[in-house]
Amino acid sequence: MYSEKVMDHFTNPRNMGELENPSGVGTVGNAKCGDIMRIYLDIDENHVIQDCKFKTFGCGAAVATSSMATELVKGKTIEEALTVTNKAVMEALDGLPPVKVHCSLLAEEAIHAALWDYAKKN
Amino acid sequence: MYSEKVMDHFTNPRNMGELENPSGVGTVGNAKCGDIMRIYLDIDENHVIQDCKFKTFGCGAAVATSSMATELVKGKTIEEALTVTNKAVMEALDGLPPVKVHCSLLAEEAIHAALWDYAKKN
Ligand code: FES
Repeated sequence: MYSEKVMDHFTNPRNMGELENPSGVGTVGNAKCGDIMRIYLDIDENHVIQDCKFKTFGCGAAVATSSMATELVKGKTIEEALTVTNKAVMEALDGLPPVKVHCSLLAEEAIHAALWDYAKKN
Repeated sequence: MYSEKVMDHFTNPRNMGELENPSGVGTVGNAKCGDIMRIYLDIDENHVIQDCKFKTFGCGAAVATSSMATELVKGKTIEEALTVTNKAVMEALDGLPPVKVHCSLLAEEAIHAALWDYAKKN
């Protein structure tokens, strides 16, 4: 049912946790399942994402997509990070079953919310 | 949204993992969200559950209810364990939001499946 990459990022998630003094924080909820996701971004003066962490109450698919999404946006500029869609994250994970696509949206929405939080502060 | 006990059992789950040579294993899936749950039971010759572990791909509510459910069935006889309903588990956790009630069913169903697996083998 789940690809090897999904199981790898679920059982060994990258960038799970919090950042102290983040440049931006985004928290989003998923009405479909009631789950929540929070993303912390550390952005330097050149608008490059230096670090990125996530916390979630969501399922394994939410954990795996967030883990992959944080890997994909790290080192990218804000403009580049905005182009990392949940479709790109799912492709990097070799796909997700249709019932789990909504879980992959949590990471994308939380990253956008964190970038928006940063933009408002700067 | 979530009680302190839910957050405690989510962030510090009890009995997460696998058992080698379990007396019974139950694996169930949730059609609503596509999540899976597996429970391992170690049952002695007096039909007492000596140990119990769980693995899940489910959300925080699934993790918290499984953690609490494994605590509740440990040390119980098979007959007693069958009376541990998901309602009892939710009460022990000080409740769950309505959208998450279906997640709490995973643990109950997996424990029943593991007891059934044990019964078939013995
Ligand atoms: S079911 Fe809620 S995030 Fe996957």
